[in-house]
Amino acid sequence: MRAVDIIIKKRDHLELTKEEIEFFIQGISRGEIPDYQVSAWAMAVLLNGMTPREITDLTLAMAHSGEVLDLSKVVPIAVDKHSTGGVGDKTTLVVEPAVAACGLAVGKMSGRGLGFSGGTLDKLESIPGYRTNLSREEFLAQLKTLGVVLTGQSGDLAPADGKLYALRDVTGTVQSIPLIASSVMSKKIAAGAQAIVLDVKVGLGAFMQTLDDARQLSEQMVAIGRLSGRKTVALLSDMNQPLGCAVGNALELMEAIDTLHGGGPADFREHCLTVASYMLVLGNKAPDLDAARMMAEKAIASGAAWEKFRELVKAQGGDVATIDQPERLPRARLVKVLEAPADGWIAEVHARRVGEIAVELGAGRAKKTDPVDPAVGIMVHVKVGNAVKKGQPLFTVHANHETLLKKASEDLLASLAWSHETCQPLPLFYGVIGADQL
Amino acid sequence: MRAVDIIIKKRDHLELTKEEIEFFIQGISRGEIPDYQVSAWAMAVLLNGMTPREITDLTLAMAHSGEVLDLSKVVPIAVDKHSTGGVGDKTTLVVEPAVAACGLAVGKMSGRGLGFSGGTLDKLESIPGYRTNLSREEFLAQLKTLGVVLTGQSGDLAPADGKLYALRDVTGTVQSIPLIASSVMSKKIAAGAQAIVLDVKVGLGAFMQTLDDARQLSEQMVAIGRLSGRKTVALLSDMNQPLGCAVGNALELMEAIDTLHGGGPADFREHCLTVASYMLVLGNKAPDLDAARMMAEKAIASGAAWEKFRELVKAQGGDVATIDQPERLPRARLVKVLEAPADGWIAEVHARRVGEIAVELGAGRAKKTDPVDPAVGIMVHVKVGNAVKKGQPLFTVHANHETLLKKASEDLLASLAWSHETCQPLPLFYGVIGADQL
Repeated sequence: MRAVDIIIKKRDHLELTKEEIEFFIQGISRGEIPDYQVSAWAMAVLLNGMTPREITDLTLAMAHSGEVLDLSKVVPIAVDKHSTGGVGDKTTLVVEPAVAACGLAVGKMSGRGLGFSGGTLDKLESIPGYRTNLSREEFLAQLKTLGVVLTGQSGDLAPADGKLYALRDVTGTVQSIPLIASSVMSKKIAAGAQAIVLDVKVGLGAFMQTLDDARQLSEQMVAIGRLSGRKTVALLSDMNQPLGCAVGNALELMEAIDTLHGGGPADFREHCLTVASYMLVLGNKAPDLDAARMMAEKAIASGAAWEKFRELVKAQGGDVATIDQPERLPRARLVKVLEAPADGWIAEVHARRVGEIAVELGAGRAKKTDPVDPAVGIMVHVKVGNAVKKGQPLFTVHANHETLLKKASEDLLASLAWSHETCQPLPLFYGVIGADQL
Repeated sequence: MRAVDIIIKKRDHLELTKEEIEFFIQGISRGEIPDYQVSAWAMAVLLNGMTPREITDLTLAMAHSGEVLDLSKVVPIAVDKHSTGGVGDKTTLVVEPAVAACGLAVGKMSGRGLGFSGGTLDKLESIPGYRTNLSREEFLAQLKTLGVVLTGQSGDLAPADGKLYALRDVTGTVQSIPLIASSVMSKKIAAGAQAIVLDVKVGLGAFMQTLDDARQLSEQMVAIGRLSGRKTVALLSDMNQPLGCAVGNALELMEAIDTLHGGGPADFREHCLTVASYMLVLGNKAPDLDAARMMAEKAIASGAAWEKFRELVKAQGGDVATIDQPERLPRARLVKVLEAPADGWIAEVHARRVGEIAVELGAGRAKKTDPVDPAVGIMVHVKVGNAVKKGQPLFTVHANHETLLKKASEDLLASLAWSHETCQPLPLFYGVIGADQL
């Protein structure tokens, strides 16, 4: 078998066999196929597509390019969740403890933020001492004893995916739905998932800008799940405007803490309860979505979800005092409220721009190696459809530099679109793919 | 400007600017753009195509990536010819001396054979002592004094094309008509051509297997010529069966010598006269094709073309005695005539298979680094449409190994297709592109 013949086959719109895909991915892992062949192949895949069978074989080949966690000795069924990334998306911080409090053990490996999109690890690291680099043994032990783990992705998981992604990033081949789908699913499968809830964001602040693309990605990931024997459900959720109010690491952590205490923004709370419900049904803890939702609501109302979060932070070395008294979390030096210049209705809160402004304040990274300031960020006080009076707060900016504060304030006001008439609020969800498996 | 953005633009079916193409090609020349970006770009070009303007800018950028010969001080108009490669194609050996004998100075840089396709340099090197590595100064001096040069391509000509081609060869991106067209034309322009006759082969033994592909390639090359100010005419010529009878280096040289003496196979002689006629008209030596053809016929009949070839061989250090007495050229140890097993009509002489059999005998190269045996090869005694009687010679095999002779004999008989009815002979030409410029 020769790599060039596999490239030519894909170039000529032919379906690759399982053996060809395994040969190619093993060649990437072992460094036997040179980068210039991998990138030509990736471009051919991007332009000519792949069948669900090919995408599944690609996913499994990448998952098995490194260690695959076996959680079957630790949990009855390993349920995982994954968000495709957005602005203000702190869902994992609420959902994982809530679900764990319902008796469904969940261990999750999260990523860092890059560009406008935030990452769960950065948010957790606002807590002094919190460890995100658990070993495999620590991960398994904590999952068994505590029923909840939130840590970083091990470098051993799906290493072929890591190499392929690095190359895609510099060759214009990131935006391939088959490659995105297989990348996401390979990491979930390598992390031991047997059932997966996918939170596929769509809109201005998401990687999938159109509902069509988001639906296609969802369908491909659900098909991979089906063909590889992992129950997979994808929720299509809105990311035109930020989720909840907080954008920035410590600010988002505080909002998650509020939500675990039964408060928090209505949209964010609703989003968390929905995701948690799907996980509970897939994890066989509830017979249907209604029962699951009641269970999750009760876990929050009773304080059990919050208690689970405290235990998690403690187990991973975090300073519990800072979550008990969130005012002790890192705080920015400068705080400025931006007020509405006139009456009107909010027609758009451009999620991507808000995310980029947060990055400029220091809350995120333009490059992978940039440091992150946990304290800075933005509170967004308005949602699309809100009627606003002159002088009402629109945003609160948390900054550590005067010049950055000034720039962010101007840019934030420009991230809004106004209307002179009433505007429809945005839905939270646009649909569910794979619900027949519930 | 970033290479990745240029890849993305081509990926998204957008037209690249001249500046973007120059940036990319200069980046290749200087080794500043890594191979994995070049190959992803080449695949995007292959799958999404290029406009004539883009192809012309690409051609000129590659031509100017190294030295561009200026022949204007040496010849009034620099006319070049190029064949896209085939089996038994020794046209250059006849056409260049014939045209030079008509007073049109022609200097040509030829290539070596690879795979089923032969190369002019290999044929010339059957002559002991013949030098194919003239320096730039030697090239210009000989063109001025003798009016004819046949040598190898200097490494300094269009080096970006060389680098790009090496990468295309291993990434499945050879078969891109825009990339083939710009590769051919960039080398011609770098070699100083102001007018070009393209001999575009089509059929079983050509790189372009269909008339559609050959026509598309021709149109793209003629468009490049038009947009870059070089008069360019493309002849679409048959390569379903070998051209002439001889396939193999010394055998082809002998056939060229016969033809220069006024003999040679009818199809080959006709092909040479046609190519020469177009060159003479483009070089302003004849007012029209009819006059040009008479001029070329006369150059052969008078012995002037043969005399020019002798001078050429002498000037480049070749042993003239071997061409004066071609029986002194390298000869194979084993010669075997294959006879017709029955009566019938010839329906096919599969040019590519005949070319591959010649390579197996040692006449060509599977890899660039393989040595070539000048003596071995095949004489093809039949053409499509011929009526053949049992026992009539079909092929003569010239070999240096018994086992290779045996294998070649079997394979050659299998390269023929027979008919029980009369068959139409194949045309020599299928059309001309760019004839309006004559």
